[in-house]
Amino acid sequence: MNISIILAAGEGTRMKSKHSKVLHKLINKPMIKYVMDACDECDVKKKVLIAGKNKNDLEELFKDQELVIKEQKIGPEFPYGTGYAVSLALDEVSDDDSVLILTGDAPLIRGETLKNFMDYHNEKKSVATVLTAVAEDPTGLGRIIKDEEGYFLKIVEHRDCTEEQLKIKEYNSANMIVNGAALKNAVSKLDSDNDQGELYLTDIFQIIREDGEKILTFQIPDEEEVHGINSKLQLSEAEEVLRKRINEKYMLEGVVLENPSNIFIEDGVKIGRDTIIHSGAKIMGDTTIGEDCVIIGDSTICDSTIEDGVIIKSSVIEKSHVGEGTDIGPYAHLRPNSKLGKHVHIGNFVEVKNATVGNFTKAGHLAYVGDADLGEHINIGCGAIFVNYDGINKHRSKIEDKAFIGSNANIVAPVNIGEKGFIAAGSTITKDVSSGDLSIERGQQANIPGWVKRHEERNKKK
Amino acid sequence: MNISIILAAGEGTRMKSKHSKVLHKLINKPMIKYVMDACDECDVKKKVLIAGKNKNDLEELFKDQELVIKEQKIGPEFPYGTGYAVSLALDEVSDDDSVLILTGDAPLIRGETLKNFMDYHNEKKSVATVLTAVAEDPTGLGRIIKDEEGYFLKIVEHRDCTEEQLKIKEYNSANMIVNGAALKNAVSKLDSDNDQGELYLTDIFQIIREDGEKILTFQIPDEEEVHGINSKLQLSEAEEVLRKRINEKYMLEGVVLENPSNIFIEDGVKIGRDTIIHSGAKIMGDTTIGEDCVIIGDSTICDSTIEDGVIIKSSVIEKSHVGEGTDIGPYAHLRPNSKLGKHVHIGNFVEVKNATVGNFTKAGHLAYVGDADLGEHINIGCGAIFVNYDGINKHRSKIEDKAFIGSNANIVAPVNIGEKGFIAAGSTITKDVSSGDLSIERGQQANIPGWVKRHEERNKKK
Amino acid sequence: MNISIILAAGEGTRMKSKHSKVLHKLINKPMIKYVMDACDECDVKKKVLIAGKNKNDLEELFKDQELVIKEQKIGPEFPYGTGYAVSLALDEVSDDDSVLILTGDAPLIRGETLKNFMDYHNEKKSVATVLTAVAEDPTGLGRIIKDEEGYFLKIVEHRDCTEEQLKIKEYNSANMIVNGAALKNAVSKLDSDNDQGELYLTDIFQIIREDGEKILTFQIPDEEEVHGINSKLQLSEAEEVLRKRINEKYMLEGVVLENPSNIFIEDGVKIGRDTIIHSGAKIMGDTTIGEDCVIIGDSTICDSTIEDGVIIKSSVIEKSHVGEGTDIGPYAHLRPNSKLGKHVHIGNFVEVKNATVGNFTKAGHLAYVGDADLGEHINIGCGAIFVNYDGINKHRSKIEDKAFIGSNANIVAPVNIGEKGFIAAGSTITKDVSSGDLSIERGQQANIPGWVKRHEERNKKK
Repeated sequence: MNISIILAAGEGTRMKSKHSKVLHKLINKPMIKYVMDACDECDVKKKVLIAGKNKNDLEELFKDQELVIKEQKIGPEFPYGTGYAVSLALDEVSDDDSVLILTGDAPLIRGETLKNFMDYHNEKKSVATVLTAVAEDPTGLGRIIKDEEGYFLKIVEHRDCTEEQLKIKEYNSANMIVNGAALKNAVSKLDSDNDQGELYLTDIFQIIREDGEKILTFQIPDEEEVHGINSKLQLSEAEEVLRKRINEKYMLEGVVLENPSNIFIEDGVKIGRDTIIHSGAKIMGDTTIGEDCVIIGDSTICDSTIEDGVIIKSSVIEKSHVGEGTDIGPYAHLRPNSKLGKHVHIGNFVEVKNATVGNFTKAGHLAYVGDADLGEHINIGCGAIFVNYDGINKHRSKIEDKAFIGSNANIVAPVNIGEKGFIAAGSTITKDVSSGDLSIERGQQANIPGWVKRHEERNKKK
Repeated sequence: MNISIILAAGEGTRMKSKHSKVLHKLINKPMIKYVMDACDECDVKKKVLIAGKNKNDLEELFKDQELVIKEQKIGPEFPYGTGYAVSLALDEVSDDDSVLILTGDAPLIRGETLKNFMDYHNEKKSVATVLTAVAEDPTGLGRIIKDEEGYFLKIVEHRDCTEEQLKIKEYNSANMIVNGAALKNAVSKLDSDNDQGELYLTDIFQIIREDGEKILTFQIPDEEEVHGINSKLQLSEAEEVLRKRINEKYMLEGVVLENPSNIFIEDGVKIGRDTIIHSGAKIMGDTTIGEDCVIIGDSTICDSTIEDGVIIKSSVIEKSHVGEGTDIGPYAHLRPNSKLGKHVHIGNFVEVKNATVGNFTKAGHLAYVGDADLGEHINIGCGAIFVNYDGINKHRSKIEDKAFIGSNANIVAPVNIGEKGFIAAGSTITKDVSSGDLSIERGQQANIPGWVKRHEERNKKK
Repeated sequence: MNISIILAAGEGTRMKSKHSKVLHKLINKPMIKYVMDACDECDVKKKVLIAGKNKNDLEELFKDQELVIKEQKIGPEFPYGTGYAVSLALDEVSDDDSVLILTGDAPLIRGETLKNFMDYHNEKKSVATVLTAVAEDPTGLGRIIKDEEGYFLKIVEHRDCTEEQLKIKEYNSANMIVNGAALKNAVSKLDSDNDQGELYLTDIFQIIREDGEKILTFQIPDEEEVHGINSKLQLSEAEEVLRKRINEKYMLEGVVLENPSNIFIEDGVKIGRDTIIHSGAKIMGDTTIGEDCVIIGDSTICDSTIEDGVIIKSSVIEKSHVGEGTDIGPYAHLRPNSKLGKHVHIGNFVEVKNATVGNFTKAGHLAYVGDADLGEHINIGCGAIFVNYDGINKHRSKIEDKAFIGSNANIVAPVNIGEKGFIAAGSTITKDVSSGDLSIERGQQANIPGWVKRHEERNKKK
């Protein structure tokens, strides 16, 4: 059967981070998860993850997945190197397994590529197959040396290359497939008699060849898939590749992306045809967006459902539901559990939180609708605030259809306002208002003649 | 005379859209309009547009232009293919016309290129001239085969190429100029005796050659101009080219663009020298921006006039006029018909709509100025709101010079506030205030000792 | 000793600007300052800047630096050309100086490059060394012609090149190092007997060679370092290079940049490891950002200190201090002199100005905290406003720990609110509130039955 060993113990000093290298995220997904997900596409029946200091974090990350995690300990009492790392997994390997060995810091590998690689290995009944790539400029990379028949002979590190070998552009990706029996035998014979005192996994090829087996190579068409990540610069370069891949997929499915190089979409988000997304959008999590929507400016949509024909301008939407034909922003914020109906209008500087808002209701400006249930065709005036917190507890208000909430009004929860209830501007409402009633809380306007002049005389400008 | 036939009937299945392919927009302008506009630069006296199901939409789009639109019907009873499409235009073609045939889905073609192409055709007294381009990698493209003298011989599709022909990098752009008589004759002889059962326009070259005429080629210097658009991925790639072209033009005219790859300017907008536009700006429609302005952040300016020296930060401006030296934002919104004077200050979370604002007036924070006429040197306090809607009608207020509107005040329209009138914080003003008067609507402040403790005792935290 | 002459008098007509070319900014730093800063890295003991009409601006820019500024006057009574420009500096040159001559409009030159260049010149005891570069396409550039031994022979302008010379890809960068005595001698012999009637500095090489000296070349590895800026298009291209250089440096130091091509960081800003900065951020001036911060969206941070673990979403922060674990935004604005403690929450549409905010205090929505001192664990309600301006003077308020400011309340400065003081929603507070007291300013709520119907009848919709 096909199994996989993924090497994820490396600490990644050049990342200059307190976090494990393979746990760094690209488009909101940890690096190691890309490798694991790619693995899943080549019919791998068992995955063995070689962890290091990051063991607890990896266990947490993959707690819902079937997976064997082994810990590679580091210290003077332990061997060192990739060969040692793989040896820790060998009790999980059967003699007739095809063992795919991957590095956990190369997240650009595609599942389809691994599938083709595995199929090639198995169809050729190969004992060991090296995944190789061709670089325009292979400086620093270990070159693949082949014999006259084209079989793999050895890897020569850049610094050890002859003039002639330096011209070779095919290099070792550090990924391979080896048959279980051969792997176990070869790894057991590895020694650390080298400059670094490490057990090098690549030394198994020499051992396998000495056992009389031929080693194949499988050259990947798109070299960038095997790029490893060793610094945050490389992290950003890989993220750019992934952003491009994801965004191209959405475009080919019928979504219009304006300047996709500056659009951040998490893979898995659902977006309907003819929706237009402009530069600056970030769409994340468990989000579904319908058809014919328009998303403009610095907008973030996370864990939300957006129905067809919604317009969102420079706004933030979290864990909310937005009905068909509703328009939001610019500069609006739907906080979690906002449920907007159809053709709702949420305008500039409006916040909604934990509220339902009925069809055709409008909150056009500078309002806060929190912990409330609003009916349909309601007009929420500019600056109106649903006062939901008394300093100790939060309460909920209810506004019925066609009510009118005046500007700068305070609706102090819990309060109910009946259908067509009308709240005068500037009123603080603490008691229920019946259907069709005006409710007003206001003093008398007093005009005091000549006050400004006296005020100026009293108060010299400091 | 020069005439043009533009093929725009294609449905563009790979666009995965309910809209016609050629009506998709790039930088806010439909694809087909780019082709038509380029046409206008090569002295074309008549344009014939071959429409399909998009006929009504094209008629609507070009309703103000002189143009012949023919409909290519699709169905088992109609022929199929580009040859058939062109045949529908032939009653508009005179024998001595130079007929420029263009595809409507290649919007990157420049007017200057078409002019050079047409001039070449006419100067050479060519019967037929094929527009060609050279691709670094011409995989999939129809190669141009020439005779020993360099005349056009034929087009060979990629799949039919010999080893030798595959090395040719010059390919058919699908654009051409053909003399009227030759075109009519050749199109009448086209047959659909081929795999697809289509009338192929490119078959006319064989017919013209059999009539003893020589066919010329005109190689375009910039290959990208003939790229067709068949998917939304290609749409975004073409838009990137156009964005670059437009933005370079503005930079060469003296506008500073910081990160132009993320600036969206519609061609036609006017921008003065030494204005600085940062990444994220969107400038659209009938907009004029003066000199020495600074536009920062996620800002949209549409159909507006911005005078010299204006600073705009992360704000949205629609159908408005902004006077010299005014500063706006961050996070402000000028809705339609806002007319700001000189040196006005509109600060964070302020909305203006259908209002005039005099010189040196300030609305620094969280205010809404709607349906109002404001004089000069007025101070609009934080949270002040112009209450313009009574649930049925909108009304207008007027504030005279040097007035002071206190924080969280409501100015309930219609109301007039005289020069230097002073509105106390928190007041709701429903009656006029005379010049120099203080107007206050407020109750008594009552301090209730020990209330908080009793409140806490009464209300346990739930 | 090493000295430098920097040519900065050019007016740069193609910039289409009223400002001097070398004063145009890249990443907020004037072009000429990049050249001067690079100079400082090659042990230059004296810098002579040749100014033109921009003399006053350059004096102002470099007023705190030791530097000689000479003015190159322009007019029919003055010679013209780079030779004349350099001649103006000669009284500052000693015979045994190594004189580095640089153009002020090529800001991409690295200090390290100049250091290597100077070391080469001095170690080789060269009389004159030309800085050269190799262009893939050197069209338009002056080619470097060498003799059989590899010594510099002459520069041939593109238009004067033979077929053979056109193949040369090494070109003159216009930067050079010349020994003082040779420079003074050669410049004194320059004549303007040429097409343009100018004194060409490059003619000194011929004169030096005629004096029997050999001239060396020093080829720069990275050609883009000598790119000059002559238009705002080239300005944006150079800025892109600088943005990339700066951002790569931060990434290699452990900062995560998501889409660095759209992140604007001024060199000199300090940013801690594992801080994540997303596309759209602008970080400027004297700013320090701690570790583990997250900056998202269209955010600007200028002249501020941000402690560890702060989250900033789509917000603007100016001249402020933000304590550990505080979160800001989306859509918040810290204006100058805001000092936030630890774990403060500043939510959407909140402005803070010239205020201190204690640990754990929250201002979640639509509030303005200006000219105030806030203690810890305070709750600032939605829409609450610190009224700090009476139309003449600004005043300051003080709020003690655990106070509660109700929604839409006005705190009219100067006012003090004691610990746990509670301000009712909608109240305008003008007098102090003692610890634990409720303060309320409110009228009676009046509900008027049937008013809405009567209102509708009275006011037909216009």
